[in-house]
Amino acid sequence: MDDIAALEKIARLIRYYILLSTTEAGSGHPTSSLSATELMTGLLFGGIFRFDLDKPNNPNNDRLIFSKGHATPLFYALWAAAGRLGEQDLKTYRKFGSVLEGHPAVAFQYTEAATGSLGQGLPIGVGEALNAKYVDRLSYRTYVLLGDSEMAEGSQWEAIQIAAHYKLDNLIGIVDVNRLGQRGETMYGWDLDAYEKRVSAFGWDTIVINGHNFKEVLGAYTKAIQVRDKPFMIIAGTIKGKGVSFLEDKNGWHGKALNREEFQTALGELGAVDMSIIGEIDKPVDQRSEKKVPVEAVAISYDKNKPFATREAYGHALKRLFPQFPDLVVLDGEVSNSTYSEIFKEAYPERFFEMYIAEQNMAGAALGFARRGKVPFVSTFAAFFTRAFDQIRMSQYSRANIKFCGSHAGVSIGEDGPSQMGLEDIAMFRTVKDCVVLYPSDAVTTEKLVEAAAGHKGMVYIRTTRMKTPILYGNDELFAIGGSKVVKRSDADTVTIIAAGVTLHESIKAYEELMKENIAVRVIDLYSIKPLDEANLREAARTSKAIITVEDHAPEGGIGEAVRSALPGTAVHSLAVRKMPKSGKPEELLLFEEISKEAIIKKVKELL
Amino acid sequence: MDDIAALEKIARLIRYYILLSTTEAGSGHPTSSLSATELMTGLLFGGIFRFDLDKPNNPNNDRLIFSKGHATPLFYALWAAAGRLGEQDLKTYRKFGSVLEGHPAVAFQYTEAATGSLGQGLPIGVGEALNAKYVDRLSYRTYVLLGDSEMAEGSQWEAIQIAAHYKLDNLIGIVDVNRLGQRGETMYGWDLDAYEKRVSAFGWDTIVINGHNFKEVLGAYTKAIQVRDKPFMIIAGTIKGKGVSFLEDKNGWHGKALNREEFQTALGELGAVDMSIIGEIDKPVDQRSEKKVPVEAVAISYDKNKPFATREAYGHALKRLFPQFPDLVVLDGEVSNSTYSEIFKEAYPERFFEMYIAEQNMAGAALGFARRGKVPFVSTFAAFFTRAFDQIRMSQYSRANIKFCGSHAGVSIGEDGPSQMGLEDIAMFRTVKDCVVLYPSDAVTTEKLVEAAAGHKGMVYIRTTRMKTPILYGNDELFAIGGSKVVKRSDADTVTIIAAGVTLHESIKAYEELMKENIAVRVIDLYSIKPLDEANLREAARTSKAIITVEDHAPEGGIGEAVRSALPGTAVHSLAVRKMPKSGKPEELLLFEEISKEAIIKKVKELL
Repeated sequence: MDDIAALEKIARLIRYYILLSTTEAGSGHPTSSLSATELMTGLLFGGIFRFDLDKPNNPNNDRLIFSKGHATPLFYALWAAAGRLGEQDLKTYRKFGSVLEGHPAVAFQYTEAATGSLGQGLPIGVGEALNAKYVDRLSYRTYVLLGDSEMAEGSQWEAIQIAAHYKLDNLIGIVDVNRLGQRGETMYGWDLDAYEKRVSAFGWDTIVINGHNFKEVLGAYTKAIQVRDKPFMIIAGTIKGKGVSFLEDKNGWHGKALNREEFQTALGELGAVDMSIIGEIDKPVDQRSEKKVPVEAVAISYDKNKPFATREAYGHALKRLFPQFPDLVVLDGEVSNSTYSEIFKEAYPERFFEMYIAEQNMAGAALGFARRGKVPFVSTFAAFFTRAFDQIRMSQYSRANIKFCGSHAGVSIGEDGPSQMGLEDIAMFRTVKDCVVLYPSDAVTTEKLVEAAAGHKGMVYIRTTRMKTPILYGNDELFAIGGSKVVKRSDADTVTIIAAGVTLHESIKAYEELMKENIAVRVIDLYSIKPLDEANLREAARTSKAIITVEDHAPEGGIGEAVRSALPGTAVHSLAVRKMPKSGKPEELLLFEEISKEAIIKKVKELL
Repeated sequence: MDDIAALEKIARLIRYYILLSTTEAGSGHPTSSLSATELMTGLLFGGIFRFDLDKPNNPNNDRLIFSKGHATPLFYALWAAAGRLGEQDLKTYRKFGSVLEGHPAVAFQYTEAATGSLGQGLPIGVGEALNAKYVDRLSYRTYVLLGDSEMAEGSQWEAIQIAAHYKLDNLIGIVDVNRLGQRGETMYGWDLDAYEKRVSAFGWDTIVINGHNFKEVLGAYTKAIQVRDKPFMIIAGTIKGKGVSFLEDKNGWHGKALNREEFQTALGELGAVDMSIIGEIDKPVDQRSEKKVPVEAVAISYDKNKPFATREAYGHALKRLFPQFPDLVVLDGEVSNSTYSEIFKEAYPERFFEMYIAEQNMAGAALGFARRGKVPFVSTFAAFFTRAFDQIRMSQYSRANIKFCGSHAGVSIGEDGPSQMGLEDIAMFRTVKDCVVLYPSDAVTTEKLVEAAAGHKGMVYIRTTRMKTPILYGNDELFAIGGSKVVKRSDADTVTIIAAGVTLHESIKAYEELMKENIAVRVIDLYSIKPLDEANLREAARTSKAIITVEDHAPEGGIGEAVRSALPGTAVHSLAVRKMPKSGKPEELLLFEEISKEAIIKKVKELL
C-alpha cells in the first residue's frame, strides 16, 4: 500500500469520527471539519508534522493551532486517529465535564490555544513562531488552520503583515477555502486567486491547491518547509461537507449535526472504515534552547523628593527585572517611547518585539509566547487595549500568563483629549476571570507591582499614569497582589477616601487641606483593584462614618463598583469621570470631572 | 497667477497656522500635519472638493474624515484658510473649553467624526460611502486622510476589502506616507510600492504620487473621481515636517510643538505669508434623496403560550418597525441567521448590509451611516462586540445614534462553549457614557424595546438570548428606557430578586417553587440596565429584607454592580458567572454557575 492510499484510509476513519462525535452530541460543525480532512490528515500523518505524543509540551514539537476553532470534530478525530482518543471519548464531545468542548479548550492536552472567536489563531501562531526563531531558537514549526470566512477579520492581516516583517519562515498557514460561511457564501467564494493575490502582496510565499488531493497537499507542505525568510500560506480549494453527498457544498448545513438516520446514510457513503489503523507521527529532533539562570534583580533607589511617572518606572522595572525573570519578553504597539518599554528595548533589544499599531495581533502574539513558556509584558495606551478586548477575553480560556500595561490612563493625560484617554480599562480587565488589576500611584509601587506581576502565574493588568507623580513610599516598602495601604490616618478619622493613581495624590492633597481645618480623613491606596484587600476595606467601613472612592475612570466597572462589591451594605460614594471629557490641562480636567482635591473636600464636608 | 501658484500660497498660510496653533498650545502634532499639507490643500482648494461652508450638514457635501486624527493642526488650518476660523480661534487649540480639541471633536461643526484612535477613519468612510451609493443615492464623495503608521491596523484592511466588495467608487483614501511613526520608522518606510501592491491586491484602483507636488496631487484627485466601480487610494510619498528644515524627516519630533524661538526660525523659512487670501471651495450640486414618510408600525401579537427567542423577536421587530423608522439600516457580521437580522434582510434587502466577519469595520461603518442621518442597527454575537470595543468607545465622542444588538448572551448558549458566550458585554456597554443598555426577557419586551431604541437618539445596546423563552407579557404592555417591571409580588415579600433575560425565567421558577413552601419573594424584571429604574429599586430595598441579583454575565460591571451603584447602603447579593465556563447543556451550565432556580432558592433561604 502506498503512502497516499494509507492516508486515504486514515481520512476515512477521521470522517467517521467527525460524523460520530457530532451526531452523538446532536450539535457541532461536521461540514466545516470534512472540508479540511485531507489538509490535516496530510499534515499530521503524511510525514511532515513532528510531535511527541507522550509529551505535548516537548519544546521541540511542531505546533498546530485550529484558528477555525469550530472544526473541533476534525481536531479531536486527528488525535483519535493518532491513537490518543477512543470512540468513548469522542462520544463525550460537547458534553458537560468533557475536555472535548465545542471549541478547543486547553483542558485537552493537545489543544495549543483556546480558539473559537475567529481570526485569532494566526496572531497566536505569530507569537509561537517569533518565539522559535528569535527567543528559543528551536526548529519547531507552527501550523495554523484557517477558515476562509475568518480571513475577513482584520486581525488576520495584522498577523500576515507582521509575520512577513519578521521573516517567519517557520509559520505555515493553511486556508480551507470551502466557499461557505455560516449564512451563505463568503466574500470571495472559491476565488482562490483572490486570496493568493492578497496574501502574496503582503510578502508571503503561497501555493494554491486542491485541498482534497493528497498529492497536492503533501507537495504543498514539502514546499512550505523549504521556504526561507518568508511565511508560507497554503490556499486550498475544498468542499464543505466533503465525502457526504447530501452535505457537499450545501448551504444551510453550517453548525448542524446529522441525525441518526442521516448518519447511517453518510456511513454508507464513506464505505468500509478500518478502525484498527493508527496514524503515525514522527517525533521531533531533540534540541535544547539556552536557558538563563535567574539572578536576583538589583534593588530600587528612588529619590523621595523627585516626582517620577509610573509609566517610566514601568520601563525601568522591566529592565531591572529581566535578570530575575529571564523568560520575560516585551511587546509594544509602536508607542514604546510613551509607555517607556523602550527602556527595556534599549537594554535587551533581542527580547523586545515591535508590534506596530496592531493591538489585536499584539495580544494574540503575546498568547503565543505565553503558551511557549515566556512571560510577555505587553504595552500600549490603556485606551487602545479596548482594540484587543476579544483577544484578551479569549486569553483567559488559554490560562494565559500575560501581563498587560496600559499607560495614559484617564482624563489626566490632558490636551490630547478623549480618544487617547483610557476610561474603560479597569472595567474591561476586571471582567476577565482571575485577571489581576493593579494601579500603582508612584514609581516605587510600580517597580514592586511589576515584580509581583512577573512572578504571578496568570493574567495581570497594570495601569500607569502619564504625568510625573510624587514618590509616596520608601524603597523597601512591600506590596502584594491583593494588598492596599493606608497612607493617611489618625485616631479621629471620620471619612475614608479610597483611591489609586492620580486621584490618590488628589486625595492626599485633600487630606492635607482638611487637616488645616481639623477634619481628619483616612486615605487608602487601593493599588490592587482585583483582587481587593477586603479585610482592610471592611475595617475602614467599620470604623468610618462614610467611604468615598475617587477614580480617573468611568463610574461603571471601576474602583467605585469594585469597592461596593467588596462592601455589601456600606454606602460608598463614588467620584468618577461622569462628564464627556475633552482637551485641557490635566488639573482643569480633574476639576471639571470632579475627581480633584476640590471635589473630594466638598464631598467629605457633605458627608460630615 | 496660475492655479498651482495660488495653492502654494494657501499651503504657506496653512503651514503658518499649523505652527502657530501648536506653538501657542505647547503641544500637538505639527510635523504630521506638515506632511499632508499639499494633499489636503489640493483637495479642498484645488477645485475637487464640493462643500457648502454655510451648511456643514448639507447632504450633498463631500465628506472629509481625518483618520490620522492627530493632524488637527492641519485640519483646523484648512477651515481657517477657508475663512471659517481666525487666528484667535486657532490660538485656543487644545485649551479647555475650545471646540478645537487635540483630536477632532464633533463640537467643531466641520468635524465629520471624532477620530484619534488610529485605523478608524476608513471604516467610517465606508459607512458614509455605502449611504451615498445605496441608501441616499447622492453623488457626494467621501475622502479619508490616512496615516502610514495606522495602515498596520487590521481595521483598515477590513474596510479596504469591504469597500472593494461594495464597489465604492465614491470613496477615496489618501495615505500620507511620511515614513515616520511615533517612535521611529514604520514597517514599510518609504516603500510606496508595498502599499500600492497591498491595496491594489484588495481590488482598489491606486496611484502613487509625490505628495508635495501639486500637479501630481491634483492629477491624482482628477483620476480618483473618474474611476468607476472601485474605491481609489492615493499613496503619497511625503516628508514629515515638510517645509521646516530642522523638522523634515527627523525622528523625535512626533507630537512635539516648537517653542517660540523655533517657531520664529520656522517662520523665517516659510517666507512671506499672505494672511489675506481665502481658499475657495465650490458648493455641491443640489440633489434630493427620496424620503419615505413614516407610517406607524403594525401591532404585535405574540401567543402567550408559545415560547419565543428574544433574538428572533429582534429580527421580527426590525422588519415590523421599518415603515415607522424609514431611516433604519441593518448591518450584520455574517451571522444574520443566528441574530435573526435575516428576517429584516429578506423583507428589505436594499437596507441590509452584510459586513462579513469584520466587526471593527462594521461598527465604524455604522458610525458613518449614523453621521449621515441613518439609524443603524448592528448585530452579531454579544461576545464578538468585544472585537469592536475601541470603535464603540470612540462612537460616543461622535454622539452616535447607533443601536447594537448582541445575541447569544451568557452561558445559556450551551454546547458551543465559552468562546461564543457574551459574558462581558453589559460591563463593556455600561462604560460608554449615555449608552442605554437593554436586556429583554421575552419577545414582547424585545419588540417594545427595539421600538424604544429606534426612537431614542443615542447609543443603545440590546442583549438577546439564544434559547426560546416563555412570553411573560401581554401584547399591549408598555416598556420604556429606564423602566422595570415587578413580575411577581405579594404583601408578604421578604426578598426581592432582580434579574433579566434567562435568569428572570429562573427567578420566576424559583418564585413558584418557593410559593409552594409559603415563601413569598418579589421578582423584578430589570429590562433596562442603564439607565436603571432607581425609584422601583429603592422601593424594593426599602420594603425587602434582602436583595438578590441574578445574571448570566460576569459579576464585574454587570447587573449586580449596577444595582449596587443604584442602592448605596443596601446589601445586594449577586449571583453571576463566577466559574470558568465550559460546554454543556444550558440547564447544566446555569446550575454549574449557580445562577439557576436552585441557586436562587438556596440564596433566598440563606437570607431568610
